[in-house]
Amino acid sequence: MFKKVLFVAGLSFLAACNTSIDNKKNLDNNFVTYVNPMIGTSKMGHTFPGATAPFGMVQLSPQTNFEVMHIDGKYNPKTYEYCAGYQYRDSTILGFAHTNFSGTGHADLGDFLVMPTTGKLVLDPIVTKDGGKGFYSRFSHEKEHAEAGYYTVDLEDYKIKAELTATERVGFHQYSFPESSDAHIILDLVYNVYQHDNKNVWTFIRVENDSLITGYRQTKGWARTKKVFFAMQFSKPFKSYGHKKYDKILYNGFYGRFNETKNFPEMAGKNIRAYFNFDTKANEKIQVKFALSPVSTQGALNNLKEEISGWDFEKTKNETQAKWNQELSKIEIETIDPAQKETFYTALYHTMLSPILYEDVDGKYRGLDQNIHESNGFTNYTIFSLWDTYRALHPLFNVIQQERNNDMIKSMLAHQKESVHNMLPIWSHYANENWCMIGYHATSVIADAIAKGVGNFDKKQALKASVTTANVRYFDGIGDYLDYQYVPDDKSHSSVSKTLEYAYDDWTIAQIAKSVGDTETEKIFLERSEYYNNVFNPKNGYMSPRMSDGSFRKNFDPLDTHGQGFIEGNAWNYGLYVPHQLDKMVALMGGKERFSQHLDSLFTMELEDKFIDQHEDITRDGIIGNYVHGNEPGHHIPYLYNWTGKAYKTQARVRMIMDTMYGPGVEGLCGNDDAGQMSAWYVFSSLGFYPVIPGSDHYALGSPLVKNAILNLENGNRLTIKTLNQSKNNIYVKSLTINGKQIDRNYILHNEIMNGGEFIFEMSATPKL
Amino acid sequence: MFKKVLFVAGLSFLAACNTSIDNKKNLDNNFVTYVNPMIGTSKMGHTFPGATAPFGMVQLSPQTNFEVMHIDGKYNPKTYEYCAGYQYRDSTILGFAHTNFSGTGHADLGDFLVMPTTGKLVLDPIVTKDGGKGFYSRFSHEKEHAEAGYYTVDLEDYKIKAELTATERVGFHQYSFPESSDAHIILDLVYNVYQHDNKNVWTFIRVENDSLITGYRQTKGWARTKKVFFAMQFSKPFKSYGHKKYDKILYNGFYGRFNETKNFPEMAGKNIRAYFNFDTKANEKIQVKFALSPVSTQGALNNLKEEISGWDFEKTKNETQAKWNQELSKIEIETIDPAQKETFYTALYHTMLSPILYEDVDGKYRGLDQNIHESNGFTNYTIFSLWDTYRALHPLFNVIQQERNNDMIKSMLAHQKESVHNMLPIWSHYANENWCMIGYHATSVIADAIAKGVGNFDKKQALKASVTTANVRYFDGIGDYLDYQYVPDDKSHSSVSKTLEYAYDDWTIAQIAKSVGDTETEKIFLERSEYYNNVFNPKNGYMSPRMSDGSFRKNFDPLDTHGQGFIEGNAWNYGLYVPHQLDKMVALMGGKERFSQHLDSLFTMELEDKFIDQHEDITRDGIIGNYVHGNEPGHHIPYLYNWTGKAYKTQARVRMIMDTMYGPGVEGLCGNDDAGQMSAWYVFSSLGFYPVIPGSDHYALGSPLVKNAILNLENGNRLTIKTLNQSKNNIYVKSLTINGKQIDRNYILHNEIMNGGEFIFEMSATPKL
Repeated sequence: MFKKVLFVAGLSFLAACNTSIDNKKNLDNNFVTYVNPMIGTSKMGHTFPGATAPFGMVQLSPQTNFEVMHIDGKYNPKTYEYCAGYQYRDSTILGFAHTNFSGTGHADLGDFLVMPTTGKLVLDPIVTKDGGKGFYSRFSHEKEHAEAGYYTVDLEDYKIKAELTATERVGFHQYSFPESSDAHIILDLVYNVYQHDNKNVWTFIRVENDSLITGYRQTKGWARTKKVFFAMQFSKPFKSYGHKKYDKILYNGFYGRFNETKNFPEMAGKNIRAYFNFDTKANEKIQVKFALSPVSTQGALNNLKEEISGWDFEKTKNETQAKWNQELSKIEIETIDPAQKETFYTALYHTMLSPILYEDVDGKYRGLDQNIHESNGFTNYTIFSLWDTYRALHPLFNVIQQERNNDMIKSMLAHQKESVHNMLPIWSHYANENWCMIGYHATSVIADAIAKGVGNFDKKQALKASVTTANVRYFDGIGDYLDYQYVPDDKSHSSVSKTLEYAYDDWTIAQIAKSVGDTETEKIFLERSEYYNNVFNPKNGYMSPRMSDGSFRKNFDPLDTHGQGFIEGNAWNYGLYVPHQLDKMVALMGGKERFSQHLDSLFTMELEDKFIDQHEDITRDGIIGNYVHGNEPGHHIPYLYNWTGKAYKTQARVRMIMDTMYGPGVEGLCGNDDAGQMSAWYVFSSLGFYPVIPGSDHYALGSPLVKNAILNLENGNRLTIKTLNQSKNNIYVKSLTINGKQIDRNYILHNEIMNGGEFIFEMSATPKL
Repeated sequence: MFKKVLFVAGLSFLAACNTSIDNKKNLDNNFVTYVNPMIGTSKMGHTFPGATAPFGMVQLSPQTNFEVMHIDGKYNPKTYEYCAGYQYRDSTILGFAHTNFSGTGHADLGDFLVMPTTGKLVLDPIVTKDGGKGFYSRFSHEKEHAEAGYYTVDLEDYKIKAELTATERVGFHQYSFPESSDAHIILDLVYNVYQHDNKNVWTFIRVENDSLITGYRQTKGWARTKKVFFAMQFSKPFKSYGHKKYDKILYNGFYGRFNETKNFPEMAGKNIRAYFNFDTKANEKIQVKFALSPVSTQGALNNLKEEISGWDFEKTKNETQAKWNQELSKIEIETIDPAQKETFYTALYHTMLSPILYEDVDGKYRGLDQNIHESNGFTNYTIFSLWDTYRALHPLFNVIQQERNNDMIKSMLAHQKESVHNMLPIWSHYANENWCMIGYHATSVIADAIAKGVGNFDKKQALKASVTTANVRYFDGIGDYLDYQYVPDDKSHSSVSKTLEYAYDDWTIAQIAKSVGDTETEKIFLERSEYYNNVFNPKNGYMSPRMSDGSFRKNFDPLDTHGQGFIEGNAWNYGLYVPHQLDKMVALMGGKERFSQHLDSLFTMELEDKFIDQHEDITRDGIIGNYVHGNEPGHHIPYLYNWTGKAYKTQARVRMIMDTMYGPGVEGLCGNDDAGQMSAWYVFSSLGFYPVIPGSDHYALGSPLVKNAILNLENGNRLTIKTLNQSKNNIYVKSLTINGKQIDRNYILHNEIMNGGEFIFEMSATPKL
């Protein structure tokens, strides 16, 4: 059920880069040209190649998910590969859907599949009842091209060129048809992205006039009560239309008074597919604007009207790409290897695909309580994959997206107010909490913003929300955690992981309390932040599962990732998770030398087959020893050498990870991008530093990959990062100066970034021991 | 599928009146004491005995519907008897539901069943999985008592006294428990009133705190997309709570992090039942306030707060009964037989149970487009059973509920704006159009209000809405009606009924056009209003089914109600439906004498068994010859003698119908009350006149049943109706004077009512020939 542990071969990225962007002008100020949305679309990256505006609600992308038709109520593990609806290996497209997760470890969304076809109308996507071909089309990557904010593909079966762009709330389709008296645009309300059974609860379409339809879809997927409304405008009137139902549920009350299936403006049911028929001339373009709303069809109509007037596809595309350029220009880089620029800007692009905007143009949004709220003083966002993103994505936002991060925190605080559990989000999307993964890391996001002086949210409210969240006894072992001062392994799964993460989160709450001068709460949570000690077993030197009787569990294997008190990790790697007290942790685990050796072992050990084979989706090449970059609990580990006096080993490891785990090809992500966390790791690490301790203003130093970089900061300052002697082999930092001043520590502070100026890294092939 | 044709024995009502209201003070100014909500609760009256405010959204009533559990997807004809959830013959109660139709010919609603129990918790209503008894309770009518705005019953199995009252938007329960450490209040979200399969789409509960819950229910019943929100406040905190699911649909995402079934504040699923546990002392009262909203849980919370503060059950009951008294006092009557007073005031009560208020206290409501609208300048109403109610209910409103009727028309105009078909309501409820029965009679309601000078709605908008509605070609044969100037029988079912009703409705549209000076539209629709002529077959003298080739159908039986071009009637009775051109119709059918004989035959003929047996729910005693009072197409027929020079026969027939088809007992309605139409017929007829031609200011004179009556009109005027020599046998009107002036016509005009003054009917045992 949980987020999968996934790895992909280290590989020769340049060779795999068969969709590298062609024919683009390499203008220095056109950063969009360096983005290749195809990166990560193969295997387990779970990114999508489609068109979207930065942080846009509409993420309009081709769906190649042939596992869609499992309406038998059974779990279908294959659909896990299709979390974003697309796999590069496929050669057929089912259509273009308007909502997609980017890089997540769980499937959902995939709403409102639109597909243009010609010829005899076929409404089944894959195979018709009599065994004929479904409405899917073959395509080839040669006739497919993706840019930030733009996607195009030739649908070979129909000789239709499909082009997509999008504003924040409106998808814009442009289909160039052949001559046909039998052209169709299908709106499929059955299609969905989800592991389990068909998730539709109810769907509804109204044909408002001869070129405008509205409607909604309610689903009970991963988001248990999700409702998305739409307005779909065609550039040309359809000549006729209709729909087909795929279930036996009556849409009652017609009594034979209507022929409901054809040209009847009200279509509804649990599973329906609608079609709209056209005559087309050769190369005639039919355009579709498709607006979403979390609130109502009226909201969708408002969004449609507000965001795209007229039918100038190029104009919308250009405006959206200008928005992308604006965002991407916040970090200008030069690299030694041109491919790294593509990797970097695509990573940067991937950090801006979630959280997404989640409100109408008038500020109305659907709250967690399913009531309609209005965002006063902020913009509402959704898709919070917090177990992933608190680590580096939100810290990255504190550097280059401060306003949005402030809005995101306000969105989380609104979520908390709307929550019947009075809890901050855990993993939430589309006005639903799905409870995925452990901890309550919204507190880390809040503390990190406070530590870095970001935002104007109400800190006292934030503290109260955090304290309330951390005391919901019925949530995931918190009651036991409070009673035992650790999560007992006989009472709760993933007991050690939970204890470690709760302790860290409690430290972040203490930081919030400190910032508002609430010393009593600070004290309480500082005490709680020490509870990690209670799962450290001095006898074996590992964070270990502990029973409610106080004893440590027998039969414990620190390399096993199954049932050993950890989740998505084992004691060997996840056990190193005490970011708020790293010196103490190092001491606890035997001191710097011994800890350093442990880190070495992690990266160099030969993992036994049995541990690799536990997960069918691990490929051996993706693992560096027992280090698992595809899963987040390890993301800080390469930087931990900094706490052992062996910073050069951090420098070597992070360069190695950047070289082998990221790249410009479709397999350029070694695991789920996890809503941007994997990419945020790359962006930070490329610049030479990483936020190991979110909630502090501290960044651990690594080894920059860029040759030079300029951060154009929202505060108007400009930070230049220069390297001397940068090369593939010069992976070690010989020295760092900030504004000419030598830095002898292995960390930098947030202000040193935000004040602007100049970092100069002098690189070397030999480590500074 | 359609509204059923139903009749109940003529019967001795006084003997059947075993629930006549006891122990009430017979105060002349306390009209509530004359209301017996039990009337019509037996067999096919389809009224409910529960508590409601006048035109209230909450109609809180006991449910004895044991046919509820048909979740096998099959049509269950037995549930038709339970359109209002209650049958007097039953001896068990399942609980109390908050929405109920009053007297309709189709089942729906029955939302939010609440049931208090004690002892071992049982969550199945009828029988448990292991064959044990469900949570229902036995009760006896001796320990049951119903008043306008109040209902009480002893739940014998639990020794709980249940009392119910309600404001417009909030139900108020008061349960007197025995001493128990195991007391429960069950909230059943599975229970529903509907003929077909389980209609739930999704249900949701949030436990906001230890005594407040909110949630919603979405159903796809007769209303295809119905969503009702609630807020439920207990007077005392529950000690624990939980729920059980009745389907396999996953409420995903808990991952074992919670025990979802007990004390977990979020409950959801397709079919769930929740329970709330209490300790109770002997005779301890636990109260529940249960607010509804068509908009949101926030709306329900606002309604709860606004309408009932505190926990004074008696106060709410008294205030609601004061509202009833205010409404009922609009017509004060004296009768010869005291039982007639109960029959009359209960009929008057039944005219105020629908349409119902359908908006929150802040004026927000769910529109037909499922968007949330705000009623500006009117109060929004729903439940429009217009094929029934345009005849006498809305005309009655034009006398005693002018403000509400104006609001209802504005609600219909809002409906039209929100309709994707751009149509005025046909049979609509809860933001849905269910298309039941034929015609577009909202135009009649509008024309009648205009003819009577009622309301301030926009007449031009009303005309446009009417014209648009009457030209929706795909609706129910309208296209053919326009092309052929009748509805061809080979193209459409109920072809003759449709032609007659469309022609009448078109005449009402012509009246609206006339009122705004649109002579062109008036002309068009006057022409259309003549189309009834095109289905008259001079060869047989009947309105007859006509084919698209112009010929009349062969094999036609004017007495058969099945497949002869009529619905809920036959050519013999329904064929007399040309209310707007009665003189012409009489001439067409052979002149006054011949038509009068036809009417005689209608009331006196011996109907062959085969025609009676066509419907299993017809009982022979309920029919007067071939006259069928239980169905609306006949309601004007007794008055038609007025157009043949034999008014005395009208007088005899209407007195006979009032005597035999209405009465004070539980069987006091001879068929569905049809959302108040049957009762409105009685109220008008009791006063001595009836609106045979809605859309005109004309009332046909009948024979008053009352001894005296005073109409306290909204315009401040007062109309006194007096009779001289009134008695059971003096059924003929010898003379009528209005304000002392002799009336020699057999009709009166609306102004003669609204101007106030005095009508004096002199009665006689001998007809005035």
